[in-house]
Amino acid sequence: MRRVTLLLIAAAALVCVIALIAPARGRAAGEAVPIFLTQIPPGYRDWRLVSVAHEEGNLNSFAAVLGNDVAIRAYREGKLPFPDGTVIAALHYRHVPSEENNSVFGREQSFVAGPQTNIQFMVKDSKKYAATGGWGFGFFKDARPVDAASMQTCLPCHAKTSRDFVFTRYAP
Amino acid sequence: MRRVTLLLIAAAALVCVIALIAPARGRAAGEAVPIFLTQIPPGYRDWRLVSVAHEEGNLNSFAAVLGNDVAIRAYREGKLPFPDGTVIAALHYRHVPSEENNSVFGREQSFVAGPQTNIQFMVKDSKKYAATGGWGFGFFKDARPVDAASMQTCLPCHAKTSRDFVFTRYAP
Repeated sequence: MRRVTLLLIAAAALVCVIALIAPARGRAAGEAVPIFLTQIPPGYRDWRLVSVAHEEGNLNSFAAVLGNDVAIRAYREGKLPFPDGTVIAALHYRHVPSEENNSVFGREQSFVAGPQTNIQFMVKDSKKYAATGGWGFGFFKDARPVDAASMQTCLPCHAKTSRDFVFTRYAP
Repeated sequence: MRRVTLLLIAAAALVCVIALIAPARGRAAGEAVPIFLTQIPPGYRDWRLVSVAHEEGNLNSFAAVLGNDVAIRAYREGKLPFPDGTVIAALHYRHVPSEENNSVFGREQSFVAGPQTNIQFMVKDSKKYAATGGWGFGFFKDARPVDAASMQTCLPCHAKTSRDFVFTRYAP
């Protein structure tokens, strides 16, 4: 029984070592393959507000952009580039008219957050995500990551911004 | 010297007693005069997100609605009416196109938070604000409360909502 336990521990340790070596080798070989988030950062819904955004056209999207403590501190101090540990979350909803509000106001003017469409994240880790400007991108629908091909579209646009790959400015 | 100190303490105590009695008398007489906030609730910018909103027309407004801990708990638990201690903040900005974002996307689609226009608050205190549905309303421009006449416009619309005077629903 003890021998079986020891073998299991040894096997588990080997798996860990391989897991640690594998990505390091990938980076050492200079592979510029983007690494995407596979897990939603925990607690993001309790983070503080960065700002709001609205995309018209085929997106018809309403966003609340939140930041973890590192992100909010960097935003408030105007620190660029964002330090490692920064995580920014974009919570996207449909931009829908509110019949309830419009009936109170007596005119068609009010739009609110409709069904949630997706949640996107940017995680700053200048070593882990060196191949993509220091940022890891995540794109989740119904709490599951979208396919890697869809996530390939994140970087080209974010790379065109003037503030360390980040579109959203801090709202007072 | 001791007599002067005692007199000062007695005078201060009298002022406090008068201050405590005065509003109670006002309420006892059944005066339905709305009481408005004169101070911005501290720390509101660190509160958690309730949802986002957008008013078109002459308002052209973008809102982020935040709640203090009591508010967020009530929202998440679906508790109505909101308990005493609830504070909800609506941070309003101009809804402005982002030339910076549009140039990246290659089309006119992106709107962001422009200059801040005002901050509005609702504070739940079923005794203090009994005359206005248990809610105290606050409306601040450039960190100063607007005139009382402007604040008289809050209650009539909020009273028409179906969820304890509150327009904004919680976004997931």
